[in-house]
Amino acid sequence: MKVTVLGGGSTYTPELIKGFIDISSVVMLDEVVLYDIPESSEKLNKVFTLAKRMVEKYGVSIRLKKTFEISDALMDAEYVIFQFRPGFLEGRYRDESIPLKFNLIGQETTGMGGFAAALRAFPIIEKYVDAVARHSNATVINFTNPSGHITEFVLNYLKFERFIGLCNVPINIIRSIADLVGCEMEDIFLKYYGLNHLSFVERVYVKDEDYTQKILGRIDFSPANISLEDFPRWLIDSIGLFPNPYLKYYLFRESALNKMKKKNKTRAEEVMEIEKQLLDIYEDAQDIPDELSKRGGSLYSTAAAHLIRDLKSGYGKVHIVNVRNEGAISNLPDDYVLEIPCYIKGAKPMPISLGKGDEFALAYIHTLKMYERLTIEAYMKKSKKRAIKAILAHPLGPGAEKARELLDTILEENRGWITLNDDF
Amino acid sequence: MKVTVLGGGSTYTPELIKGFIDISSVVMLDEVVLYDIPESSEKLNKVFTLAKRMVEKYGVSIRLKKTFEISDALMDAEYVIFQFRPGFLEGRYRDESIPLKFNLIGQETTGMGGFAAALRAFPIIEKYVDAVARHSNATVINFTNPSGHITEFVLNYLKFERFIGLCNVPINIIRSIADLVGCEMEDIFLKYYGLNHLSFVERVYVKDEDYTQKILGRIDFSPANISLEDFPRWLIDSIGLFPNPYLKYYLFRESALNKMKKKNKTRAEEVMEIEKQLLDIYEDAQDIPDELSKRGGSLYSTAAAHLIRDLKSGYGKVHIVNVRNEGAISNLPDDYVLEIPCYIKGAKPMPISLGKGDEFALAYIHTLKMYERLTIEAYMKKSKKRAIKAILAHPLGPGAEKARELLDTILEENRGWITLNDDF
Amino acid sequence: MKVTVLGGGSTYTPELIKGFIDISSVVMLDEVVLYDIPESSEKLNKVFTLAKRMVEKYGVSIRLKKTFEISDALMDAEYVIFQFRPGFLEGRYRDESIPLKFNLIGQETTGMGGFAAALRAFPIIEKYVDAVARHSNATVINFTNPSGHITEFVLNYLKFERFIGLCNVPINIIRSIADLVGCEMEDIFLKYYGLNHLSFVERVYVKDEDYTQKILGRIDFSPANISLEDFPRWLIDSIGLFPNPYLKYYLFRESALNKMKKKNKTRAEEVMEIEKQLLDIYEDAQDIPDELSKRGGSLYSTAAAHLIRDLKSGYGKVHIVNVRNEGAISNLPDDYVLEIPCYIKGAKPMPISLGKGDEFALAYIHTLKMYERLTIEAYMKKSKKRAIKAILAHPLGPGAEKARELLDTILEENRGWITLNDDF
Amino acid sequence: MKVTVLGGGSTYTPELIKGFIDISSVVMLDEVVLYDIPESSEKLNKVFTLAKRMVEKYGVSIRLKKTFEISDALMDAEYVIFQFRPGFLEGRYRDESIPLKFNLIGQETTGMGGFAAALRAFPIIEKYVDAVARHSNATVINFTNPSGHITEFVLNYLKFERFIGLCNVPINIIRSIADLVGCEMEDIFLKYYGLNHLSFVERVYVKDEDYTQKILGRIDFSPANISLEDFPRWLIDSIGLFPNPYLKYYLFRESALNKMKKKNKTRAEEVMEIEKQLLDIYEDAQDIPDELSKRGGSLYSTAAAHLIRDLKSGYGKVHIVNVRNEGAISNLPDDYVLEIPCYIKGAKPMPISLGKGDEFALAYIHTLKMYERLTIEAYMKKSKKRAIKAILAHPLGPGAEKARELLDTILEENRGWITLNDDF
Repeated sequence: MKVTVLGGGSTYTPELIKGFIDISSVVMLDEVVLYDIPESSEKLNKVFTLAKRMVEKYGVSIRLKKTFEISDALMDAEYVIFQFRPGFLEGRYRDESIPLKFNLIGQETTGMGGFAAALRAFPIIEKYVDAVARHSNATVINFTNPSGHITEFVLNYLKFERFIGLCNVPINIIRSIADLVGCEMEDIFLKYYGLNHLSFVERVYVKDEDYTQKILGRIDFSPANISLEDFPRWLIDSIGLFPNPYLKYYLFRESALNKMKKKNKTRAEEVMEIEKQLLDIYEDAQDIPDELSKRGGSLYSTAAAHLIRDLKSGYGKVHIVNVRNEGAISNLPDDYVLEIPCYIKGAKPMPISLGKGDEFALAYIHTLKMYERLTIEAYMKKSKKRAIKAILAHPLGPGAEKARELLDTILEENRGWITLNDDF
Repeated sequence: MKVTVLGGGSTYTPELIKGFIDISSVVMLDEVVLYDIPESSEKLNKVFTLAKRMVEKYGVSIRLKKTFEISDALMDAEYVIFQFRPGFLEGRYRDESIPLKFNLIGQETTGMGGFAAALRAFPIIEKYVDAVARHSNATVINFTNPSGHITEFVLNYLKFERFIGLCNVPINIIRSIADLVGCEMEDIFLKYYGLNHLSFVERVYVKDEDYTQKILGRIDFSPANISLEDFPRWLIDSIGLFPNPYLKYYLFRESALNKMKKKNKTRAEEVMEIEKQLLDIYEDAQDIPDELSKRGGSLYSTAAAHLIRDLKSGYGKVHIVNVRNEGAISNLPDDYVLEIPCYIKGAKPMPISLGKGDEFALAYIHTLKMYERLTIEAYMKKSKKRAIKAILAHPLGPGAEKARELLDTILEENRGWITLNDDF
Repeated sequence: MKVTVLGGGSTYTPELIKGFIDISSVVMLDEVVLYDIPESSEKLNKVFTLAKRMVEKYGVSIRLKKTFEISDALMDAEYVIFQFRPGFLEGRYRDESIPLKFNLIGQETTGMGGFAAALRAFPIIEKYVDAVARHSNATVINFTNPSGHITEFVLNYLKFERFIGLCNVPINIIRSIADLVGCEMEDIFLKYYGLNHLSFVERVYVKDEDYTQKILGRIDFSPANISLEDFPRWLIDSIGLFPNPYLKYYLFRESALNKMKKKNKTRAEEVMEIEKQLLDIYEDAQDIPDELSKRGGSLYSTAAAHLIRDLKSGYGKVHIVNVRNEGAISNLPDDYVLEIPCYIKGAKPMPISLGKGDEFALAYIHTLKMYERLTIEAYMKKSKKRAIKAILAHPLGPGAEKARELLDTILEENRGWITLNDDF
Repeated sequence: MKVTVLGGGSTYTPELIKGFIDISSVVMLDEVVLYDIPESSEKLNKVFTLAKRMVEKYGVSIRLKKTFEISDALMDAEYVIFQFRPGFLEGRYRDESIPLKFNLIGQETTGMGGFAAALRAFPIIEKYVDAVARHSNATVINFTNPSGHITEFVLNYLKFERFIGLCNVPINIIRSIADLVGCEMEDIFLKYYGLNHLSFVERVYVKDEDYTQKILGRIDFSPANISLEDFPRWLIDSIGLFPNPYLKYYLFRESALNKMKKKNKTRAEEVMEIEKQLLDIYEDAQDIPDELSKRGGSLYSTAAAHLIRDLKSGYGKVHIVNVRNEGAISNLPDDYVLEIPCYIKGAKPMPISLGKGDEFALAYIHTLKMYERLTIEAYMKKSKKRAIKAILAHPLGPGAEKARELLDTILEENRGWITLNDDF
């Protein structure tokens, strides 16, 4: 089995390598290829050298390669991981700063930041999906953000089927519950559904017991860069759902915005500094350094490695991934790409029927799904008009008063990355 | 045939009487009963006297009655018109003024104004629907606001089927297009869909020709109290739909709010003054006075009278009314109550299949439908928690920061009209 | 407006010409082109000459042409009528005689006769649909049998949208009810649904009144070649639906089969004789001769001409035609092609929502729709295996014991018309 | 945990006891109660005595009880197994012999035999479901035949949700494949769907590999009383699905009927003799005697015991059971009760999304589901008319020529068990 990582030069990669090392006792993993573009060659070299040392240290027989040739990278690959960042951290910086100037939430995946990120990502995703289809029969596991939006694009518009959107939020929620209850992660099953970064936990089962009331609102869940502190007891009580941390941008729009405006650094700038430090540390490290935890992305490599293990082994496990709904939530359309629990057996995740979704969750899911599709259509038609239509449908978008000015600024600042026709 | 008007004391009633007079040449209309509550007896008397004079003047054989007895009013009625206003104009005044204090749109049917209006209306609607079911086999035509929300409540929660929600917006749009094109209203067919006061025209057909491009964005449509001036050319071009005027509250939220704040009188206060004048004029009038046009509600009586005529005659006409979707818009659930074109033949409007709805429209329709249902559930469970959930799902609602304070204010000011349990 | 008739040499054509003459006072009909293949030139000439005389007699300004050139025939046509018979009456003779040898119903459109007819028709339909798409923007009105099956093929597999399947059964049912009640055909609205030649009337409305109980089971409906005498009172009472006459082949399979076996002539042979007589008569006739009524197809031309009139005029009428369900019957899939009432306004018939269909009707509709699709797939894959699969799904098909022998016989006798690969 | 068996006097019970003994090491099983009606007291006593000896022999701590009191039996039960036979083997004898007189398939669960069995079962099922609901919070596992039809009745008409229909066909198919491949049963996942005794295997996965082509048509699957010998290679090739053995009654209707007519004993008569022998043997036996295998029902107890184990333990296993579709087969309605793979975690089996079903399978599934519902409606309305409607919708039912005579015979011979009003 060969696994290829697009965006192999990411500072996350060592964690991923650790994940591969861990599963190599269960599934036969012959080769791991780290691919990146020449612009990232310095990062790739440093990361690759650390990865080599790790493979040696743990004494596993994984063959490690790096390459800048996409056909070499993909040929005969069985799984391909997408973890590249279209537009680099500079792009993220723009996504986090431009909206703030318009008094709007500026976030990597959410709101008008996520909108710009999606438009930067689509052409690059299209190129690499095409390459995967030409050079391999591989299944893609996607971490590139906005992950759910990209999965919608690939499954429903590019019509490429072997594509699974992944995120570390579900596994962190399960981890937190397991810690709280004192059980294994496998004992837990969630009625979990929604869009990536806009999901909801409606029920929690531990073994055969319903733990929902014991858990709802009590857990203090904090992946590295997100905090739930903003969700007070009365709020969880009112909506009756355990929300994805990102929901705070919708529910506490004003306070979240004020907080962002007060910070003197964007998260992108912080991450740039962390990355610099990490790459320095990687030069001498023998294993994943503690500093990586600052980078965020907790359990990200576990999510990916376990998914590959279970796709490959056919053990019959459940993972929460981004795929088409196909009846899992009975009052949402079959073709919506959702983040939902799937039974993993054979090549394709099979969604598990969860019954009806809650109206509150559906209000957000429907709206954002329509926004996602309008944005994809804007990309496919290269149309500014359509892009305006998309942002006017987004709950965190601007009013019509400033929509054109915002779009013009995004396009101006992302020249070379996003191209739309001036079809007004 | 007997037609009963609940809220018969409304200043609109003379226009309705004129509508009945007009259709009486086509359908045999034996009796019209004006019912109201004792609190409105003065209004009812004035309106009834004018109505009597009108029937005489036009020489039609309609028997006119007034009553405060609901069983008398409903017995043997074939059609019942709901046009009462729960909480009177004082309630509307609160709906228009409370939200403004929270920096939110204050509107009769839209936003947090519409939310309070719905909670005031539900118990009264429930009482009268129950009375209709007990005393008659009548079909109800509902004008009470929020009209679409109430129809959702009656059809899907009270499970009373003979209920049609009506509004004068569709007929005014058709009237405006007919004037612009120079054709008959009957020549026009619209791909029109959405919620009441949140609807969209996607295509315009005149006879067998597609007039969409000729019409879209060109029309200057102004029913008495609403203006389309805010929808500039580029905006219509971007969304590719002809929006219901009320959409401005969503798209131009900031400017609409500022405008409202600058006005020194609410619309409720204006209407109170107009009503006072009208009732004075009614005392001596022989027919509908010109002043009624200031009251708004243009073509309202035509909509109602023609609907009754066509339900009764079985001529096979099309009306745009609020009923369950039932496949008309194929990518919306069958059970959503929508404002859509229906073929009228036999007792029940039959929706006409229009194909798929546009994603932009759907973003709004889904969200508001979920809000509608959450509000209805809050009413049915008498739950403050659920009410919070509903307003947090509304795009024009407050953030979680102020949701509880807003709800408390609404409940405080609507004491006696809205009762929810303090279930926190 | 130009209308083209493919299969213009049919003996039905004079009736169609009469239909065009009748509507020419309402819609401007400039040109009618009769197209046929050279093999039918003698028939075409005779029919054309009669048609010319008719146009003269009635003094209308329709330009009449005949041609063997498909591009000439289709260029600039607005409506195209398909009424050709793939395989001629000789094909129909085989369809009516081969199944009988296997102790199965042998019928033009139903059972294994209809199966062979469909496989003969598909390649020819595909050719002409392609020609229509290349040479015109015309809407096709299809009478070629099996009409519903062909419409399923064209809309859902060829993905050609401007195609309406038509049959004279619905108009004859409406005509019969109008005669019985003593009202206009336009006063009647039917909850009518199903497949062509496998449809059901669940409710009958005359003006605004429900006449179902007055009509159900009482009517003695007889189009020229079909009789309802076999449906006794108790049967209609049991199923609670007014069945399409063709349902007798399913419900009275044994007696229908025995009756067929006892006849010493197939219907095809009868029709061959009638056609010969008709063509002789046409040579001297000035108008439609009485003998045409023996040919069957009562009101066929009225159905077609009125449909064209109403598509063109935009008057807003209802016709029962074969189109995609699109929600009309809420418990059948949106994409099933059904025979249902549509509102005709603008270019495309819009199905009218009728609510749920009856389980008894659905049992037949589902099974036959699955058979239709399996047959289409057999044609598209040119696969004998798939053809076996299709006939094993048909309620009037053979058991597995004789399925291969039957298929082999059909293929043998239809050599040159049907080609499937021997993929066993 | 307490498990109650209704129909505890069945000769199957010892096998079930063995199943409970086997799982008692994994789940804590405190008490097993055998309930039966006084008419079966002799059988119950013999079976109970053997069960006691078995529990002792295996040294497990299960408390064993027998009772004729339904409230005692159900009080505090966690799982209830329905395995009673409404009308005893005498009823089955009638089901197998009456249809033969009408030249129709006579079978325990299929065709007109299954029709009579269903009508006998419904009132008794209704009574016991009501008792379960009153006396416990138990989940019912149903083996009473026709098992799928009964589950449709209970879930969709009685609206009792904690009810799972079970059959030994799926586990036998999996067992056979595991034997053929040489793997564990848990390694196998099937795209399996349909109605009970009318199901289809479309794809076979072993671990992560697709074994469909290796398995399809090759397996010689024979549960005790059913043989697949009738499905020749070319037939499986044509339909491309691995059929449930019962499908032979539909596909080889004529030969199956002839075979039945030639047998000099019905299966019911055979089983009566086997039962007599078994009860004699049970008197002295210490464990399940070999003779039980003649009785049929292979692996039946494993299916039930493992389902209870996995419902209770929350290990996350997959079982093929009869529940509502809920999107598992995307082109079948959500509310159809189907036999499909479910993920078992927490109290309720959750169907796993399998994508679209095959048209051939759907033709049968739809028709039989409509027949099932019509039969249930006949029972609920106690209507002979509706019963006629149901049997006319059944592919193995009589033509309209003999439908009433057949129904009259069934009613006559099942007096006391089936009561319908003569509503003609």
